[in-house]
Amino acid sequence: MTKQTDARTLIAGRGVVEPFRVMKMLDLVHRRRAAGQETIMLCAGQPSTGAPEAVLSAAETALRDSPLGYTEVVGDRGLREIVAHWHSRTYGVETGPDNVVITTGSSGGFVAAFLATLEIGDTVALARPGYPAYRNILKSLGVGVVDLPCGAETNFQPTAAMLEALPEPPKAVLVTSPGNPSGTIIDPGEIEKIAQWCDAHGAVLISDEDYHGLSFGKPTVTARQFSDNAIVVGTLSKYFSMTGWRVGWLILPDALVETVENLQASHSLCAPAISQIAGRAAFSPEATEELDGHLERYRETRRVLLDALPGIGLDTFAEPDGGLYLWVDVSSVTEDSEAWASELVDAIGVALAPGVDFDPVDGHSWVRLSLCGPAEEAAEAVRRLGQYLGR
Amino acid sequence: MTKQTDARTLIAGRGVVEPFRVMKMLDLVHRRRAAGQETIMLCAGQPSTGAPEAVLSAAETALRDSPLGYTEVVGDRGLREIVAHWHSRTYGVETGPDNVVITTGSSGGFVAAFLATLEIGDTVALARPGYPAYRNILKSLGVGVVDLPCGAETNFQPTAAMLEALPEPPKAVLVTSPGNPSGTIIDPGEIEKIAQWCDAHGAVLISDEDYHGLSFGKPTVTARQFSDNAIVVGTLSKYFSMTGWRVGWLILPDALVETVENLQASHSLCAPAISQIAGRAAFSPEATEELDGHLERYRETRRVLLDALPGIGLDTFAEPDGGLYLWVDVSSVTEDSEAWASELVDAIGVALAPGVDFDPVDGHSWVRLSLCGPAEEAAEAVRRLGQYLGR
Repeated sequence: MTKQTDARTLIAGRGVVEPFRVMKMLDLVHRRRAAGQETIMLCAGQPSTGAPEAVLSAAETALRDSPLGYTEVVGDRGLREIVAHWHSRTYGVETGPDNVVITTGSSGGFVAAFLATLEIGDTVALARPGYPAYRNILKSLGVGVVDLPCGAETNFQPTAAMLEALPEPPKAVLVTSPGNPSGTIIDPGEIEKIAQWCDAHGAVLISDEDYHGLSFGKPTVTARQFSDNAIVVGTLSKYFSMTGWRVGWLILPDALVETVENLQASHSLCAPAISQIAGRAAFSPEATEELDGHLERYRETRRVLLDALPGIGLDTFAEPDGGLYLWVDVSSVTEDSEAWASELVDAIGVALAPGVDFDPVDGHSWVRLSLCGPAEEAAEAVRRLGQYLGR
Repeated sequence: MTKQTDARTLIAGRGVVEPFRVMKMLDLVHRRRAAGQETIMLCAGQPSTGAPEAVLSAAETALRDSPLGYTEVVGDRGLREIVAHWHSRTYGVETGPDNVVITTGSSGGFVAAFLATLEIGDTVALARPGYPAYRNILKSLGVGVVDLPCGAETNFQPTAAMLEALPEPPKAVLVTSPGNPSGTIIDPGEIEKIAQWCDAHGAVLISDEDYHGLSFGKPTVTARQFSDNAIVVGTLSKYFSMTGWRVGWLILPDALVETVENLQASHSLCAPAISQIAGRAAFSPEATEELDGHLERYRETRRVLLDALPGIGLDTFAEPDGGLYLWVDVSSVTEDSEAWASELVDAIGVALAPGVDFDPVDGHSWVRLSLCGPAEEAAEAVRRLGQYLGR
């Protein structure tokens, strides 16, 4: 008559999402290193450097000067003003602090933006390959994904023509430039066309600008140059090298601010106080100088990998315009990049990110390499790989 | 044929949730104080003290010793071991670190627990009055709420008999003891009955134990003493006085750990690193001594309020067994506690939390007072209130 609880029956189907294999690989590397097993980390989705010195100092001060209670739900006012000023100055737009909501990492920003704009049963168009969390969060929230398969023809990025070709407009379009895992940058003219298409079709444009600041030459534009309806997602985790601090932001159309504020009040209360207060210093000239130095190191690691990979027969990849990654076709070597990545860690102490995280369809023959580590380590990893493959 | 985007049309109905008025009142108090307007804060949902000294020291060390990148998705191993040990020792249960997932505040824990166990269209039974975020998060996730109206007859807490009387079992039951806003503690025997009822009816028991450690005498028990299927939610924000640090935890049945890990990998990546590492020190003997001192101050403020309120004709309230609040019937004074609370800030510089946050039906004639501030301030607030009311 009544049913006994069996803990396994407690699991909801919508809560069953894919594991994030990169994070598991990262844990494995940490465990290996702790056990004294030397491992080259080419899997990381985060800078190996810590926060800028100016941030560390500011954090030390905040520890003693502030009770570090809740900040405003929408975020520390000082940080919102700084983000607004930085965004306005960088892109020549007029972004005011009242349109900025500080979130708990960009992760918190995605969840809030999705909940604020997407009903259960709506769909979002996004690039494949792409950041796996998008799909997982959307699934758990009851929202569908419309795949935009993106290959070398379009520099691994979606286009307005792809949206035009859809049988019906999705409720939202999500773009990521520089891309993860591709590192490619969408041309300004194409972002403009995508923004116009969204505005003409009643679709929300969500622009993941997490990797802005990390360009190897090509210009990056903010979606808000082309539409006041666009939602921008940003973070202190990538260019600003503050991964574990969990601070990001949304730049929102006026009409969405209150909705996002109320959602955030219930879903997270506020982003971590010390990270917000110390994060103000991430935009200082001293910090910028330090962070631009990191970018030069990513550039060097990128150069080493682009030069060396063709020599071991891995000559098909997305050439990164920016970001922190290199997306490499390994179909000549394996049809199961997850198993292959595990094999490599054991055999030669090199940790890569298997492609299935980023592309559930074709990712089994791709891997993502990180540009975050030192160039020498990247060179040594390719040498070991070549030897292992007999190339 | 196609529809132009109007930013207002971007808002999704499920994203429109109630504002959290207490947080707005908190912001108002901060703005008033910054402007030199003296204000007594009886609205806070957080200790006025900062983190324990041992935590501040540990944070200083972590700033210099760790790159503060991502921790494990399930949380810093050291902190998980400490939480598991603390939980086992405090309640005489066997909780292992593999059943502990560190979350971004208990807020992150609620979202993860709901997504892991509740399908769209499911229902959760919970007490009214209660913490407003429950309702708001559930609404945004497409889950229904079954109200359990709780008054003085049951010490403002739900009972197994109330569950038994429901026309059909909900998918989950959520209990909070000590309660927010009531501060009342559910008897151990009643929690046991509720846990048994849930197990017999295939319902998930989610036990919000955020206010544990804050009891004025009555024992608190963990739901996991009575069922291995129960999900426990905990936090460093209340007893541990680390509100803005955003660290909480879930204690989970074995079967749910992987689901929650995968959800957290996509929804938040990990809780803030510095807060997790420094948070280990919150369980040290030095920190416990400091924190127990805070509890004595809450007890003193409670005593002052309980003694003084009847003298100004406010003699109907939930007598708090623990927690940080006093839930007071103000129906003799107002039928709109939100407007009245605004009026009081302006008129006498006393900030209360309006009851509508906690009880959407009857909360217009209740307010929540905080025990977090100094006893003298509480006494002064009651004096001003009495004068204002002419009592």
